[in-house]
Amino acid sequence: MSRVYNFSAGPAVLPLEVLQEAQADLVNYKGSGMSVMEMSHRGKEYDALHTEAAANMKELLGLNDDYAVLFLQGGASLQFAMIPMNFLGQGQTADYVNAGSWGAAAVKQARIIGNVNIATDCQKDIPTRMPDASEMKWTANAAYSHITTNETIAGTQLKDIPDTGSPLIGDMSSDILSCPRDYTKFAMIYAGAQKNLGPSGVACVAIRKDFAEKGNIALPTMLRYTTHIEENSLYNTPPCFSIYMLCLTTRWVKKMGVENLFKQNREKAQKIYDAIDASSFYRGTAKKEFRSDMNITFRLPTEELEALFIKQASEAGMKQLKGHRSVGGIRASIYNAFPVAGVDALVAFMKDFEKRNG
Amino acid sequence: MSRVYNFSAGPAVLPLEVLQEAQADLVNYKGSGMSVMEMSHRGKEYDALHTEAAANMKELLGLNDDYAVLFLQGGASLQFAMIPMNFLGQGQTADYVNAGSWGAAAVKQARIIGNVNIATDCQKDIPTRMPDASEMKWTANAAYSHITTNETIAGTQLKDIPDTGSPLIGDMSSDILSCPRDYTKFAMIYAGAQKNLGPSGVACVAIRKDFAEKGNIALPTMLRYTTHIEENSLYNTPPCFSIYMLCLTTRWVKKMGVENLFKQNREKAQKIYDAIDASSFYRGTAKKEFRSDMNITFRLPTEELEALFIKQASEAGMKQLKGHRSVGGIRASIYNAFPVAGVDALVAFMKDFEKRNG
Repeated sequence: MSRVYNFSAGPAVLPLEVLQEAQADLVNYKGSGMSVMEMSHRGKEYDALHTEAAANMKELLGLNDDYAVLFLQGGASLQFAMIPMNFLGQGQTADYVNAGSWGAAAVKQARIIGNVNIATDCQKDIPTRMPDASEMKWTANAAYSHITTNETIAGTQLKDIPDTGSPLIGDMSSDILSCPRDYTKFAMIYAGAQKNLGPSGVACVAIRKDFAEKGNIALPTMLRYTTHIEENSLYNTPPCFSIYMLCLTTRWVKKMGVENLFKQNREKAQKIYDAIDASSFYRGTAKKEFRSDMNITFRLPTEELEALFIKQASEAGMKQLKGHRSVGGIRASIYNAFPVAGVDALVAFMKDFEKRNG
Repeated sequence: MSRVYNFSAGPAVLPLEVLQEAQADLVNYKGSGMSVMEMSHRGKEYDALHTEAAANMKELLGLNDDYAVLFLQGGASLQFAMIPMNFLGQGQTADYVNAGSWGAAAVKQARIIGNVNIATDCQKDIPTRMPDASEMKWTANAAYSHITTNETIAGTQLKDIPDTGSPLIGDMSSDILSCPRDYTKFAMIYAGAQKNLGPSGVACVAIRKDFAEKGNIALPTMLRYTTHIEENSLYNTPPCFSIYMLCLTTRWVKKMGVENLFKQNREKAQKIYDAIDASSFYRGTAKKEFRSDMNITFRLPTEELEALFIKQASEAGMKQLKGHRSVGGIRASIYNAFPVAGVDALVAFMKDFEKRNG
């Protein structure tokens, strides 16, 4: 029974020890006589997991009690809608940085609700990149400003958090807890769990309570952040098993340490970028200063060679290396839980493949 | 390692063989080298599960291709909002039957959006009950009509589906697939999975495609049923593991047969109701003709005795028998997966407890 090297962009690889613990306890959680999936969300066993998951996130994000950590359903995609529904009133403007597919997806939903200013648009720039702070144009008195810290499809990452002059909201689905970051600069951050936090089915939101209070109170109850703050994410039945897995994953992140994971993430990414840069066969698609540590994107000389690369890598136990269908090419997603040995295997394979086909 | 008898109202007991299969495959699904939780939702392994889950539901509900089966996040609670957001336009009226806490919760969200007619209100009637067809007052040309087929808190179940004269929507969270039912009478049905279909984190919606087309197109993309129909519930990353568990659970339902499960459910419920009716110590709270086969609610002579009953039952391995905090008393939830032996154990315990305390 051997595990593969899983380069999926998400849902993505989880720490093996987390999966093994979940497996051991799946039918009978800690002698309770039931699975976590079978427990009342108001009972004491589940409550302990729910509380610990939120506390772990708060500690790892370095946030105080001015913030609430929420576990919501609908992924980042529902957040794209809930944010403007709550915070973009009539006559107001929200600033959005559009630097890739996910930024554009957030913009699209905000425009359904209200007035959007595009602070910068570099979504279609080739090589892919993030904007420089100097080119971002912020609105005075914007309702809020929105950035995407890592674009999984382009393989780019925002290295510095801009000063926007309005409450800053960050979609961090693909790089949360992968590097040290001053999360207190944000009025709100959010992340679908399925890259660095756990399996799909839960989105983690951390929001300043005073910012949440500004939300539109005419919305249905489920779509208001204040509901979930007041009810501690238990207004309705939460996605208990996904939150349990997030609890186990954040325990693992705490044990590893975010600084150590960051160091390891940089080293993992650098090994692949070095292999790209040392070769004229492989070509990175992102501008060097904005290269993502999470998603490494590159091309081969032809699409035929790319298809062969993906096929032979898969046969060698390196799975899901195909780039996003909208852009093609190769994408190696190497989140926190992706093992160093898998990166070494990929780099060796890249060298060998070039030798055979270069 | 022994399992308890888990009477939780939801999340609730799952079939043991389903849990055991999930456990065996948790770290390495069918030799793929990864967990279901780690797979791309666009990959072939997950796609097979996603497709089978929808096909199983469609077959078990007896629906043809006029309907789409969707897997959405946010539970029944988000459906309470999405339904009026999609279908209750300005100048229109929706009819709601309010026969308990869940009916009332649906009404509350609809009123945030538009005009609601309460076709019947028997939410606060004691003994708890469902309305007779004769007392339901339907609006001519209503946008839709909404019923809740089983009220988990009250312990009541609607035995006949009314003719409402408008597109009928049913919240079947707590009795879906527990009995034969003509689901083609409905324009839409929905159910949070965590009672009869799997773990929490996914809601199953079956909707007539022509009804979905009437939905408000000005809504954010995630809140439109047509989005999820067009994208086969893959517009965004779905709650993959919950859908996988639903797939395994519906496989089990197919193997058992809905007719057989219904017969067993009736026998299980009748054993407990017989124990109640044979005693003057226990008192059922629901009108006999509307007694639920899923949630059996009863009282003891005093709240002190109820607390002792719950405590001693728990010590004897019968868990989560406490009634909902809003009403108190005892509630035994015995969904499809609840074993007959657990019902027999409860009945024996009830007799013994009465002997010791009656």
